[in-house]
Amino acid sequence: MTATIDPDDPWSGTAPGHRRILEAALSAFADRGYHGASTRDIAAAAGMSSAAVYAHHRTKADLLFAISEAGHRHVLAVCERALEAETTPVARLRSLVHDYAAWHARHHLLARVVQYELRSLLPEYRAVVVELRSRTEELFGREVRAGVESGVFHTEDADDTTLVILSLGIDVSRWFTPGGTRTPVGIGRTYAGVALTLLGVDGPVPSSP
Amino acid sequence: MTATIDPDDPWSGTAPGHRRILEAALSAFADRGYHGASTRDIAAAAGMSSAAVYAHHRTKADLLFAISEAGHRHVLAVCERALEAETTPVARLRSLVHDYAAWHARHHLLARVVQYELRSLLPEYRAVVVELRSRTEELFGREVRAGVESGVFHTEDADDTTLVILSLGIDVSRWFTPGGTRTPVGIGRTYAGVALTLLGVDGPVPSSP
Repeated sequence: MTATIDPDDPWSGTAPGHRRILEAALSAFADRGYHGASTRDIAAAAGMSSAAVYAHHRTKADLLFAISEAGHRHVLAVCERALEAETTPVARLRSLVHDYAAWHARHHLLARVVQYELRSLLPEYRAVVVELRSRTEELFGREVRAGVESGVFHTEDADDTTLVILSLGIDVSRWFTPGGTRTPVGIGRTYAGVALTLLGVDGPVPSSP
Repeated sequence: MTATIDPDDPWSGTAPGHRRILEAALSAFADRGYHGASTRDIAAAAGMSSAAVYAHHRTKADLLFAISEAGHRHVLAVCERALEAETTPVARLRSLVHDYAAWHARHHLLARVVQYELRSLLPEYRAVVVELRSRTEELFGREVRAGVESGVFHTEDADDTTLVILSLGIDVSRWFTPGGTRTPVGIGRTYAGVALTLLGVDGPVPSSP
């Protein structure tokens, strides 16, 4: 399932014309919100006619779903990949949190649409995306519980700690600015340290960039 | 400065007609985003004419600023108030984090506009709001550093830990749903525990509701 994923490119395998539409829509949704971005603006930003956009996606709602679904699949695949080479609870959780937080920095515009436009999805589309989200969340839940069961992690409430770890990663997409002092990899390292501290493994938070 | 604040009501002291406009605009901005909400929709939701809205706020940009500024002032006042009765580093930070996280649950719609519509503010308005934000952030930074200096808190990077604590509180406004299993007070308690764990004070995260 994860063999073909390019962690740097959520649109790998997409034809150039279609990619231009998706990237223009993503940028418009991230900038003005789904309800504030018109298909006409998106077509103009992609250098195409509205008809050319509609040939790929019948409605703006379809376009949002395409982006949200691709983003949710991408971050899920990145998380599955993060676990592949690791065996111990500490190494697995560190890799998972690192790559999840770094994804929200590296793909911060996509992450904003993925995380903040759930409400804007049509109900039948939202159901698909929510299923993908719960698979990602469950990866974290499973790793936290496995570490607790093996006596390596210590937490009074595994669900609360899982929520906190996911929430921190997600919020990176709100504040991250490319070219600032913090880098995706530095954030990943810091947040992996935070997660392990919360699980009673490490000492205080290591520093970034 | 904080004497007159009502922690439950960001609009205390506002005349009823004006309050109706602010609440309708807040709800529209939180639901559809600033760019997706029209002044006409807001007037309709408030049961008023657009002219009546314009009598209070000349433009939609003014309305966003009024809400964002009031929200930023309210959370700052709530944080200042949280510190008033406390003297030790642990008690002060616990109270601060508790009330900050609980505010983002209790006033989650206002918090979303405060936190996610910064980009939508006109530059001259944004400057005012950014100054208020940095005062709130500085309250946290100062408490973290004071605890480190007095040897009670332990962190390799006080700035990173401060960022993480603020970020967690802010993200509550994204996922919080009233009537769910988690309550503002329960979240406040959990997040205060998370902050103290990250600062090497407490053990693992205590559980909520």
